[in-house]
Amino acid sequence: MPTIKEVAEEASVSKSTVSRYISKNGYVSDDAREKIKEAITKLHYSPNVIAQSLKTNRNQLVGLLLPDISNPFFPRLARGAEVYLKEKGYRVMLGNISDSKTLEEEYLNVLLQNRAAGIITTHDFTKDHPEIDIPVVVVDRVDKDSRYGVFSDSQAGGHLAAEVIWKAGTNKVLLIRGPLDLADNINERFKASLTFLTNKNVDLYIGDSKSFDFDDIQSEAKYYLDQFIGIDSIIAPSDIHAIAYIHELHSRGIGIPDEVQVIGYDDILMSQFIYPSLSTIHQASYRMGYNAAELVYKIANHLPIEEERIKLPVHYVERETVRRKYE
Amino acid sequence: MPTIKEVAEEASVSKSTVSRYISKNGYVSDDAREKIKEAITKLHYSPNVIAQSLKTNRNQLVGLLLPDISNPFFPRLARGAEVYLKEKGYRVMLGNISDSKTLEEEYLNVLLQNRAAGIITTHDFTKDHPEIDIPVVVVDRVDKDSRYGVFSDSQAGGHLAAEVIWKAGTNKVLLIRGPLDLADNINERFKASLTFLTNKNVDLYIGDSKSFDFDDIQSEAKYYLDQFIGIDSIIAPSDIHAIAYIHELHSRGIGIPDEVQVIGYDDILMSQFIYPSLSTIHQASYRMGYNAAELVYKIANHLPIEEERIKLPVHYVERETVRRKYE
Repeated sequence: MPTIKEVAEEASVSKSTVSRYISKNGYVSDDAREKIKEAITKLHYSPNVIAQSLKTNRNQLVGLLLPDISNPFFPRLARGAEVYLKEKGYRVMLGNISDSKTLEEEYLNVLLQNRAAGIITTHDFTKDHPEIDIPVVVVDRVDKDSRYGVFSDSQAGGHLAAEVIWKAGTNKVLLIRGPLDLADNINERFKASLTFLTNKNVDLYIGDSKSFDFDDIQSEAKYYLDQFIGIDSIIAPSDIHAIAYIHELHSRGIGIPDEVQVIGYDDILMSQFIYPSLSTIHQASYRMGYNAAELVYKIANHLPIEEERIKLPVHYVERETVRRKYE
Repeated sequence: MPTIKEVAEEASVSKSTVSRYISKNGYVSDDAREKIKEAITKLHYSPNVIAQSLKTNRNQLVGLLLPDISNPFFPRLARGAEVYLKEKGYRVMLGNISDSKTLEEEYLNVLLQNRAAGIITTHDFTKDHPEIDIPVVVVDRVDKDSRYGVFSDSQAGGHLAAEVIWKAGTNKVLLIRGPLDLADNINERFKASLTFLTNKNVDLYIGDSKSFDFDDIQSEAKYYLDQFIGIDSIIAPSDIHAIAYIHELHSRGIGIPDEVQVIGYDDILMSQFIYPSLSTIHQASYRMGYNAAELVYKIANHLPIEEERIKLPVHYVERETVRRKYE
């Protein structure tokens, strides 16, 4: 990547002329201008980003690192962040990390090289990178020791999902634990459901999911529905999981919710359109992104911050996949 | 952004020592190593990207610029590209452009500064940027004069959608034109449907959609269903459009497909799970991404290319929103 010095050498002008040209600050002759333009084209120099850095030290770029855009929860979160940051004159650079360390490193390098004003990420990398001194806000998968974070109340959510299923009436529950290696929040939900149900008079079966990929979950659904005969309720770790299980229940001719009731988690757009429409725990994904963006903005601009860790409430959305109690 | 020279000055070692350190090629004393590490931390230098550039001239980064990740068509396309490129040792940097010129420029700058090996994009920016000399493959929204592209046969798709509706029996059709400013392909589909239907004995109503945003489309659906009373068929420009119209038909108590039949376009995952499940024109989104990645890879590595513009076939997926002819 060429420096201002190399551009100056190529154009046979002084470094300060190049600097004036780039920052649009001060006189540059037409002749010099032409030469600099040619040099920039020849050297693949990108003056825009640099020019902004010169003016503001940090340019108006915020990185948003997400684990998986094929789960609609994250595009919705991204939208929330984009709307806030656009309003504030920032641009968002999105990274689809696919839970890959290498890809995360790559994006971090690019963001730091481009002097991003801040980063919103679902994976707290700050312990691995103490040298990173720009604002970092963790979103959704916030660890206990993440300083800045916006996340749902997983404990309440897990408790609520189990309570809804139990109140609707159940004898045999399949409780599915989401991919564990990813974050605390998925395990917290699971533990809260587990704690609630262990005190109740129900047979409890535990399934483990390794993935948020729809095809993978379909295989898991086949396996667990073969394994655990006679379950009457499924508590899923996400709507994607719930929808994959519903698909498998349909193909086995099992009635929903009469024979097996299902509760999801997230309340993605799709959950209101599937058949039967999915009863689920609503997470405020849009607001999560919006609040995280606000937090990054405030840190970057040294504005007062009321809360460093924002916990968002969840609520139950009653639709058609959980049985109704008729009294 | 600091240069090798600045790192060398900060660490009080020679430029070639820094270069040996970064490229892990040749001897560097422990003392020099420590000093360079400190200098790199202090200057926020990102040696990884640079190190790769030193070794290969271009690093193994491919940019993927998409218009809207909240439309599941594009995450699926991204997945296809990522799978191919990961196999070849490339990393994918994703840009959610939101059809914004400014954001596109920003991503292009970042990709060029990081010496990306190539770019896959839904918007052909090559006319506006003749100076960009890395491989660019346009995907989905391929213009007539795009050199490299992978796209669906929109003409066949638009024809097929209209033919399916017509064969199922219709008197009054609402044909919705997708957002026009985006690309030729959406207009091509529309024109092919229009051409097919103008020769048939049906009343034809035209609706214009300005957006792929679900909430926007819901408002449009309300407007057109108020406007055009008695239509018995809807040809939608995307599955997202079809699903929004189905939602509105449901809330008006209109039977699908008996009173109004609906055909979508894309065959996103969601279309098989909604109720009634959506009859639609299948586009090979995963394959589109995969083939575009292969094309970028071949151009970047000077491998023989059979086809510069790859047109993928479409087909009709029969589900439950189009009437069946009983003979």
